Amino acid sequence: MRLVTFRRQGSAQPGIVLGDDIHEISSHADVKAVLADLEGIKYKDVAATSIADADLLPPIANPAKIICVGLNYLDHRIETRRPETAFPTLFIRWPDTQVGHSQALVCPKEPSRFDYEGELAIVIGKGGRHIPADQAMSHVIGYSCYNDGSVRDWQKHTSQFTPGKNFIASAGFGPWLVIDEIADPNTLTLTTRLNGEVVQQSGLDLLIFSIPELIAYISTFTELSIGDVIVTGTPGGVGDRRDPPLYMKPGDIVEVEVTGVGTLVNSVVAAQ
Amino acid sequence: MRLVTFRRQGSAQPGIVLGDDIHEISSHADVKAVLADLEGIKYKDVAATSIADADLLPPIANPAKIICVGLNYLDHRIETRRPETAFPTLFIRWPDTQVGHSQALVCPKEPSRFDYEGELAIVIGKGGRHIPADQAMSHVIGYSCYNDGSVRDWQKHTSQFTPGKNFIASAGFGPWLVIDEIADPNTLTLTTRLNGEVVQQSGLDLLIFSIPELIAYISTFTELSIGDVIVTGTPGGVGDRRDPPLYMKPGDIVEVEVTGVGTLVNSVVAAQ
Repeated sequence: MRLVTFRRQGSAQPGIVLGDDIHEISSHADVKAVLADLEGIKYKDVAATSIADADLLPPIANPAKIICVGLNYLDHRIETRRPETAFPTLFIRWPDTQVGHSQALVCPKEPSRFDYEGELAIVIGKGGRHIPADQAMSHVIGYSCYNDGSVRDWQKHTSQFTPGKNFIASAGFGPWLVIDEIADPNTLTLTTRLNGEVVQQSGLDLLIFSIPELIAYISTFTELSIGDVIVTGTPGGVGDRRDPPLYMKPGDIVEVEVTGVGTLVNSVVAAQ
Repeated sequence: MRLVTFRRQGSAQPGIVLGDDIHEISSHADVKAVLADLEGIKYKDVAATSIADADLLPPIANPAKIICVGLNYLDHRIETRRPETAFPTLFIRWPDTQVGHSQALVCPKEPSRFDYEGELAIVIGKGGRHIPADQAMSHVIGYSCYNDGSVRDWQKHTSQFTPGKNFIASAGFGPWLVIDEIADPNTLTLTTRLNGEVVQQSGLDLLIFSIPELIAYISTFTELSIGDVIVTGTPGGVGDRRDPPLYMKPGDIVEVEVTGVGTLVNSVVAAQ
């Protein structure tokens, strides 16, 4: 099952993808409510729109918590010259930093090194705290692609990544949420393309901290809720660590593909 | 004017403090709505409760953004042995990390060095982006006291402070929001007491990055909205940098007083 949030007649609606079409889910207000009641959803017989014509938003429009993992692939940790850590490196995004599939990422007008980071996003379907790693996968309901767009100069103003990871419309999330189709996320492959050229590629089995380990660690300090998003980290190949560096600029097209999940495509525009 | 959020008959209500009493605001659903329409508020003639008996929640129960500033007093930066930075050090809290005045802070059961950080919190009354420093104070509507309770071992697991600053019920925020009573926050004095002993004390004029500078910087990357909270930083004297260290433990009472604002008092309990 593939779930989307899309804009129709000015308001955000939950939808389900059937073939190449999106059908409006009429039984629930948003995708979070759908996730809480997958058995109970009803959708309209007639397609609302084709995927190609849809105005897609991030599949979860209003997550209470978006937790991003940094430095979670060995090749990326090495290219950043950061030390090994015994715990995952976590930072927080606000929801207004995200855009959906086909929406434009906004390149800040401030002096900015605007970089791509292709990642796998997981979505929590069952909340909880102190979730043991061996039960963690039962709390994951779906998967999506994520571009953890990073304004590198602002990320490095201080020790804390916060500003560089929280520019409005700097991250892509989508195109949809894949439910019940991924038997083992370790078998997936992540690929990032900038203007058609592959710039990052890795198997998800190379995550330093696995999805169950991330959920166990995060749920020690916070309570996870339905619809929360964990963005699992980016592999090597980011633009800021290339020689010469390779940044996203207005007019670019950036894609994040995860096998079995889909391909998130975003254009890049200049901030007004 | 002093605004509170308090629990009455099981639900969170906005209220106004008159003398030693809290009167329920009947015209608006929550304090955020009150802030948007200060001229239009109506409150009940009869007090709902005395302050002493009230079940106070954080004065803004549901801020969209809580932005905390680290290392914003010279004596604290020096005691942490961190370098000078040209920009403010920012991290994010989620709302469920906060408790109100008289509520208990929860000391994690994990091995934890649970530390106090007395701070001044400011609340945004008028949203915006790219707010110039010289107009920033017109975006501030109120002030409150804040205890940015920090689980030091978890804060230092990696370079990012996130886990140590986001344990559930680790921060105090209150007792109320003071509106229209503070002509110049630089004249205020902040004092933190642990079990009655003064452990931190500083003038707010010693902030490295001033309130206008913080708002200008933060609003470059994000859009501020009504009810957003900026927690301005803690002065020297934190427990983790004392010899021997001084941590909060179950049974303790911790107070954060800001002259002209009030005194936030919290007990500390052990996590269940």
